[in-house]
Amino acid sequence: MTNIALSRRLRGTPFTRRVEEAGVAAYTVYNHMLLPASFGDPEGECAHLKEHVQVWDVAVERQVEVFGPDAEKMVQLMTPRDLGKAEVNQCFYIPMVDERGGMLNDPVAIKLAPDRFWISIADSDVLYWAKGLAYGFRFEVEVFEPDVSPLAVQGPKAETLMARVFGDAVRDIRFFRGRHLSFEGRDLFVARSGYSKQGGFEIYVDDFDLGEPLWDALFAAGEDLSVRAGGPNLIERIEGGLLSYGNDMTRENTPYECGLGRFCDPWGSIGCVGRDALIRVERDGPSRVIRGLRIHGERVPPCRTPWPILSDGGERVGQVTSAVWSPAFDTNVAIGMLDRGYWEPGRTVWIDAPDETRPAEVTTLPFEKPDEQRG
Amino acid sequence: MTNIALSRRLRGTPFTRRVEEAGVAAYTVYNHMLLPASFGDPEGECAHLKEHVQVWDVAVERQVEVFGPDAEKMVQLMTPRDLGKAEVNQCFYIPMVDERGGMLNDPVAIKLAPDRFWISIADSDVLYWAKGLAYGFRFEVEVFEPDVSPLAVQGPKAETLMARVFGDAVRDIRFFRGRHLSFEGRDLFVARSGYSKQGGFEIYVDDFDLGEPLWDALFAAGEDLSVRAGGPNLIERIEGGLLSYGNDMTRENTPYECGLGRFCDPWGSIGCVGRDALIRVERDGPSRVIRGLRIHGERVPPCRTPWPILSDGGERVGQVTSAVWSPAFDTNVAIGMLDRGYWEPGRTVWIDAPDETRPAEVTTLPFEKPDEQRG
Repeated sequence: MTNIALSRRLRGTPFTRRVEEAGVAAYTVYNHMLLPASFGDPEGECAHLKEHVQVWDVAVERQVEVFGPDAEKMVQLMTPRDLGKAEVNQCFYIPMVDERGGMLNDPVAIKLAPDRFWISIADSDVLYWAKGLAYGFRFEVEVFEPDVSPLAVQGPKAETLMARVFGDAVRDIRFFRGRHLSFEGRDLFVARSGYSKQGGFEIYVDDFDLGEPLWDALFAAGEDLSVRAGGPNLIERIEGGLLSYGNDMTRENTPYECGLGRFCDPWGSIGCVGRDALIRVERDGPSRVIRGLRIHGERVPPCRTPWPILSDGGERVGQVTSAVWSPAFDTNVAIGMLDRGYWEPGRTVWIDAPDETRPAEVTTLPFEKPDEQRG
Repeated sequence: MTNIALSRRLRGTPFTRRVEEAGVAAYTVYNHMLLPASFGDPEGECAHLKEHVQVWDVAVERQVEVFGPDAEKMVQLMTPRDLGKAEVNQCFYIPMVDERGGMLNDPVAIKLAPDRFWISIADSDVLYWAKGLAYGFRFEVEVFEPDVSPLAVQGPKAETLMARVFGDAVRDIRFFRGRHLSFEGRDLFVARSGYSKQGGFEIYVDDFDLGEPLWDALFAAGEDLSVRAGGPNLIERIEGGLLSYGNDMTRENTPYECGLGRFCDPWGSIGCVGRDALIRVERDGPSRVIRGLRIHGERVPPCRTPWPILSDGGERVGQVTSAVWSPAFDTNVAIGMLDRGYWEPGRTVWIDAPDETRPAEVTTLPFEKPDEQRG
């Protein structure tokens, strides 16, 4: 572990004071902001997340608001996913690519009204991309970062906790849908979503000063549910096959390489940036794809740089970009990309990790429990 | 201090291994990359920088390359500074604003050829802004991030050290000019520039694998010059009045508020984003400006969030955004913005720091030594 030098440039969130009172042990930086990465026991936090409920400061998921008569046209331009049937209060995972089909971000778009969208972003300045497009095309839109900081409530007891604070209406929210619910007289957008596979909600807190009252209300209501402060958990997200922009995919990758082809419809009538490049890639097929890997042997060190994946003959056939020991699977779980010819599940490849070269088994994502595989 | 959780997303640089061998004590994150913030003794590092020479890993100053027939037109669109007289191998500090004149970045542009520019960026994804504009305007340009990682050599002995490695030709390079010089048979762009007031150079290392050989050559040649690993030093940069994007200015601020009006010529014949908004601001004058502040009393804690500046009557009249104890000035030095009516040098204001409210004196930037003030 290395220290982080804090300054205004690495922005705090409405919840930072509470996060520090809860004993945050490590931050990462995401969208120029502090994201709690660990409270000191990642494996314990992973197990707790799968059994109870956690409150996560994910204010780093900044919103890019696109508002105005051309909002729908412009958001559609920004993704190869067809948004033609999007309904108000619906959330869409939208790969976002540049003119050559390289991933710029993989945000969730929320249609708040026919002329108003929030783009809830991964770690890159989508605001700048959107502003550039809006200016270049002279779209009639406002593009800005509103004072909105998502707070996630994740885990199997999330619905129970949320119902205590927001009322039973939360139970009716379907996956990737949202609605406005009242907290202390304020209507907040609440969606059933979040960066874990354990279920839960994200509350879009649209007033910095509301952060601590909401945090406190959730902890007061959840004491008997073993509610804890948490954050996106590396173990759980790799097990669940949740990709991380900047880790598992970059501008070098097309959505097809990232296993996101099902969200792309470049053949459709939509006009989007990167359309021609994506049609080309879809026709030819990707030359590498993302996969899970079970890396055998002792627990791997932290994956700070891509680790080469080698064939039996020692040829480089891919790279690992996220890896961690999974107590639940009793092996190291990893995410990486493999070249054509080496990506079929079950194949054995070699991982050139910093400490030693280890064998690994290619798998599908998300990882399946041994008993699930047999069943 | 808090730990930082490392991952591929917080990219290492060609020099990271050497930086860690040199005992880096804290990182900050800048353009999704690791920037050494301290080697354990910021005050000692500041004093050393003023007397000797340091090698800084500033690979975080990523380059946005704009290449093609429309390159000059596009770079000019991105800044209110008139680039009409820019010569090849010249560097320009260019405030970059959005459609309403809000600062998006304050990079240095380098004209490598009439149709080829590097934009050496502060901490925001200028690449996305440039790509959006290029796409929207259908400019005939390529916009991309090349494999270029600047390495800075800073301090009064920088020229001596550089001459030993690159030859005496470095001595002829004027401030904010550059030229290609040979290292191990490779031509690297070297400019007289850098984020300190102690003089020096920046080497644009355009091959990741050249990083360690160059680092090692500088340290081998500089042993008798007391060469050390370093990084942008908070104390020295505040004393010198060097602004930090994201700390001292954000999208909320116009260049005029930041004291950068001398770099803006919106009245000129140039067509730039934000022109009309900037003309308006220049005519009306800014409503707040950036200033130095000598904060009295004991050493201040780290400035993680803006500290309110209060008038004698307790009214909020500004905010401090960077602050640190300066051994050389025997006071806390700070940078902040003050509202109209409160910004004249010599005025006393009150700083609402987290530990206590302290009096402070408004000053010009850069800070002047007591004897310089009297002289």
